[in-house]
Amino acid sequence: MSNIIQDIKLRDWEEEYININPLQTGGRTYPETRKAIISYIDGYSTCDWCKGALGITDKPPIREFLDEVSKFLGMDYTMLTNGCREAKFAVLHALTNPGDSVVIDGNKHYTTYVAAERARVRIYEVPSNGYPEYRIKPEDYVTVIENVKKETRLLPKLVFLTHVDGNYGNLVDAEKVAEICKEYNVPFLLNTAYSSGRMPVNGKKIGADFIACSGHKSWAAGGGNIGLLSVSEQWKDKAIEYSKKYKVKPIEIIGCSSRGSSTLALMASFPHVKERVKYWDKEVENSRWLMKELEAIGINQLGVKPTEHDLNFVESEKLFKISETHKKKHFYLYYELKDRGIVGIKAGLTKNFKFSTYGKTKEQIKHISWAFKDIVEKFAK
Amino acid sequence: MSNIIQDIKLRDWEEEYININPLQTGGRTYPETRKAIISYIDGYSTCDWCKGALGITDKPPIREFLDEVSKFLGMDYTMLTNGCREAKFAVLHALTNPGDSVVIDGNKHYTTYVAAERARVRIYEVPSNGYPEYRIKPEDYVTVIENVKKETRLLPKLVFLTHVDGNYGNLVDAEKVAEICKEYNVPFLLNTAYSSGRMPVNGKKIGADFIACSGHKSWAAGGGNIGLLSVSEQWKDKAIEYSKKYKVKPIEIIGCSSRGSSTLALMASFPHVKERVKYWDKEVENSRWLMKELEAIGINQLGVKPTEHDLNFVESEKLFKISETHKKKHFYLYYELKDRGIVGIKAGLTKNFKFSTYGKTKEQIKHISWAFKDIVEKFAK
Repeated sequence: MSNIIQDIKLRDWEEEYININPLQTGGRTYPETRKAIISYIDGYSTCDWCKGALGITDKPPIREFLDEVSKFLGMDYTMLTNGCREAKFAVLHALTNPGDSVVIDGNKHYTTYVAAERARVRIYEVPSNGYPEYRIKPEDYVTVIENVKKETRLLPKLVFLTHVDGNYGNLVDAEKVAEICKEYNVPFLLNTAYSSGRMPVNGKKIGADFIACSGHKSWAAGGGNIGLLSVSEQWKDKAIEYSKKYKVKPIEIIGCSSRGSSTLALMASFPHVKERVKYWDKEVENSRWLMKELEAIGINQLGVKPTEHDLNFVESEKLFKISETHKKKHFYLYYELKDRGIVGIKAGLTKNFKFSTYGKTKEQIKHISWAFKDIVEKFAK
Repeated sequence: MSNIIQDIKLRDWEEEYININPLQTGGRTYPETRKAIISYIDGYSTCDWCKGALGITDKPPIREFLDEVSKFLGMDYTMLTNGCREAKFAVLHALTNPGDSVVIDGNKHYTTYVAAERARVRIYEVPSNGYPEYRIKPEDYVTVIENVKKETRLLPKLVFLTHVDGNYGNLVDAEKVAEICKEYNVPFLLNTAYSSGRMPVNGKKIGADFIACSGHKSWAAGGGNIGLLSVSEQWKDKAIEYSKKYKVKPIEIIGCSSRGSSTLALMASFPHVKERVKYWDKEVENSRWLMKELEAIGINQLGVKPTEHDLNFVESEKLFKISETHKKKHFYLYYELKDRGIVGIKAGLTKNFKFSTYGKTKEQIKHISWAFKDIVEKFAK
């Protein structure tokens, strides 16, 4: 690493390609976002007019922004976190003690599990129904909560649901899970990493106590670390504890979380985000259209059908077979797609992979469909 | 907030002014840094070539970068964190259980205290000698560790030292504190938020078990959240636990911390940082020169003298007196300095305030000196 600057290749995936990496489609910045990031690019730039804590800063209008987010999500109080995983851990850490139990779903993101390990709690899992649907059934939460009661003689301290999971793009009926949690009187955290910011999410309507959001995954907030934790009035005091000595500093974000351009990025993208969730139906329509086209050529969607999300997981014996004869072996799909202007499917995968069509135009969706067809026509025996 | 984009005023402190805000002078980005940030501006951009975890990513060369950082800091293993405070909490959380005791210094950053509150540990403090020096004496760590032993019948689980504090810019002899910790066989965390990245810091030479660094404060890494935790071989396994289920994911950073442009910013600035620490003497010289000039006009340095850092805290009855007659009241100093091209002293302060000269040219230092003199000459009765 004699010269690390030269080693950093400039990244051109957004500018030069149609990027369908599920991690990245919903985080893509708008021109205003880039402008805000560049303007606040230096360290601690949110602190020019510090009032003691990030969340109560008025210049730039962070406090007002967080109030608007609360309204947007149908929640009562919102704080900035370093990301969605950090929001989940904040609640876990605030509400549990080591040895307590929590319930998570089988389609959880790995960070839900690791955050729970970090909190040193016992993890109970609501399984999906497995291949090919991987459906999470809300009623199974009853079984698992009852199991926790039986085994520990206590209720779980926190129940998680992945609203839309990052593997299959399955959308779960969160209201039903919330109802079950209400019946047991246990707090309910909805992980909206792949839902809020893309589709309408209303915590009050759902009955969520906590909503964790991913700025980089679904709120067009770019690559600084940024997330949101929205809380209901009922749980606010229990979850948002302040330092005894530094009274304005929330303990679970160690005072201030995202003290720089990532906060500004989230703010600058917010007007777009508020607008774009109105067109969620169009996203689902595009996604369904593409899945239908791909199924016709032997690339089959897993997960609940028809898809209800822009993120989908497919399996294809046909694409896998091609890797046995293509000179680039199992890397062929990555290169063939790249040659056709498409990136974002993990290099090396051919039989099972996931991708997202979020934010793509109908023309781009058609191009993706064409690219897969062209590859199959050219190489399948 | 009908139109939050318009409400975000573009920030021009770096481009239009000499910024002496202590939070910001060492975090200022280089042109290469800005280029890297813009290139990796979209979400999860470090994950294009994911190998399972951020710290082992080779494209961009994050793994290699972290190895280089370990060498640079004289440590054995380094991981990316969301910031310095998050690095401190990671160690606290890994090494302690609620109810354990830790030792911190009286000049600690508030986040050390809040991180310890978050970890639910008992906090014992090594006091400074108070006004006007606020000196932390290494030998006082013995007294406080003995006190912990006496009160709890146990040794502290972790000892913190703020290498250079953020109020007075006092530099403490960390080697002596490390020696004391070695004698008691307790792990020692050195908070280098205001030292590493500005001045040479060698963990081996000091005898530190953990070094926490601030990307935005002292490593020119801009405004995304970024920090570093460097660990000695002896404590690596105890502090860096991996998920039982997701074996490559470190628990204390919930798998991956800074998954975007802030990591690239840190990397792009690193060659500059390695170079600039060689010229630390020059920074101290500039700072001392300015302090001498200011003392001559009644603006007096607090903290250990002569100053050993670019960050200094001053008190001035003379500047305070001016606020009693100036039409802008106690905001006068902010506006008068701004009129003279200088920002970064907290608006409203006149009697006691801090600032930093890091990275300023001699010409800029002279200009700062002139500005204060001009204000005093113009307004002091």
